Amino acid sequence: MAGTVYLVGAGPGTPDLLTLRAARLLKRADIVFYDALVHPDTLALADKSEKIAVGKRCGRHSTAQRFINKRLVDAAQKHELVVRLKGGDPLLFGRAQEEIDELTAAGIRFEIVPGITAALAASAAVGTSMTRRGLSRNVAFVTPRTGAGEEGHDWAQTVLAADTCAIYMGVGEAAAIAVMLLARGASSDLPVVIVENASLPGERCLRMRLADLGSAAASGITGPAIILIGEVYAQASPASTACKLAERARAA
Amino acid sequence: MAGTVYLVGAGPGTPDLLTLRAARLLKRADIVFYDALVHPDTLALADKSEKIAVGKRCGRHSTAQRFINKRLVDAAQKHELVVRLKGGDPLLFGRAQEEIDELTAAGIRFEIVPGITAALAASAAVGTSMTRRGLSRNVAFVTPRTGAGEEGHDWAQTVLAADTCAIYMGVGEAAAIAVMLLARGASSDLPVVIVENASLPGERCLRMRLADLGSAAASGITGPAIILIGEVYAQASPASTACKLAERARAA
Repeated sequence: MAGTVYLVGAGPGTPDLLTLRAARLLKRADIVFYDALVHPDTLALADKSEKIAVGKRCGRHSTAQRFINKRLVDAAQKHELVVRLKGGDPLLFGRAQEEIDELTAAGIRFEIVPGITAALAASAAVGTSMTRRGLSRNVAFVTPRTGAGEEGHDWAQTVLAADTCAIYMGVGEAAAIAVMLLARGASSDLPVVIVENASLPGERCLRMRLADLGSAAASGITGPAIILIGEVYAQASPASTACKLAERARAA
Repeated sequence: MAGTVYLVGAGPGTPDLLTLRAARLLKRADIVFYDALVHPDTLALADKSEKIAVGKRCGRHSTAQRFINKRLVDAAQKHELVVRLKGGDPLLFGRAQEEIDELTAAGIRFEIVPGITAALAASAAVGTSMTRRGLSRNVAFVTPRTGAGEEGHDWAQTVLAADTCAIYMGVGEAAAIAVMLLARGASSDLPVVIVENASLPGERCLRMRLADLGSAAASGITGPAIILIGEVYAQASPASTACKLAERARAA
């Protein structure tokens, strides 16, 4: 008799933004498959389980994803409680559907446990609501990353149609993103914040205008980062302690 | 000396989708201001604090919001740890910016503690990833609700520009939403799922096509609900236990 696979969101990085349900499941898990960006202290909650790293930070290959899918099915045939721990929320940019489809095809029971997605932690870091009466009543989460056979709406169109936007996995292509948005009619004055390592001790917030996003590559961003775009970010709202410290350090 | 106000996301409804940080803050809080949709068991975590209901489920008035803003400032002048507990995530459709602006103007320190937003719990309920390789690489969260002096992109434009969409606070206007989207060129076959009471025992998932969204009002939806739209919902992926039970009950 097969066990259950829980696709669990580990949240944006800091261990205490994990949900109570995720913490409880980790404590009870027989085996945990985890992504590269999961915090060691989060993983440590799974103190009685086998822990297997399956994450790749960049350049994910579908072969590797197929291998993960297969391992989840195999694990569910041996264990009662299998956790697949993903950064952020499993259903946003986490390739969860491929795992869900494989589990479904194999008749394995699964549950999704939501997590805090990085964009919300990033906007929390700069102390700014993504929606605001009179200014923003819709929000888009996009990625400019493309894969083989990729379809769907083009990301720039989605960004331009939303009041507030978070771009995932885009910092490496910041210059191209700025060029594309400006060419499609976005204002060069549009406020932008890049938040690196949202929720973690190394959290850093870089405020700029869209015209200057191209030079973001010069800022030495090496951690995972979210690009926030929209008029709501125009106001220099007080940032979180971490961002404020970083901003003071740069100003000094 | 003023205390700190924590704008805390209570998550989608079920108490165990609260974050560890939120649970810790509630336990330590001197005073908690909470919205109508916060679960009693979540509130019960604040066992040593004064608890004040300030939520209104529908028809929020700006006068009432101004009153909440003022009470938060007053509370921070008397207490060390003030929690403002909001359903879902504070920065999505939570009117957090009005509270942030008031706290900032009064020189009160604040922090944002993200929560699981309802759309992610709704998509988890139907076991479907909002993004999917080859089909969806961007997501929009919108509301058709308008207020006095409301500006920003029109919600239908944002929905049409995104691969996958979640509409908040829209079920009461489901017929108008369907008419608007169809008139703007959306396919009448576009898959739609309405998730009522996501994450709670009364969770219910209603699958339909966009053409049939107008008749959703006849389904007796009374709890908070999210409308999910997009090709990713075409596949009848196994839903969560609660949704499956409800679907079986209806089929019987």
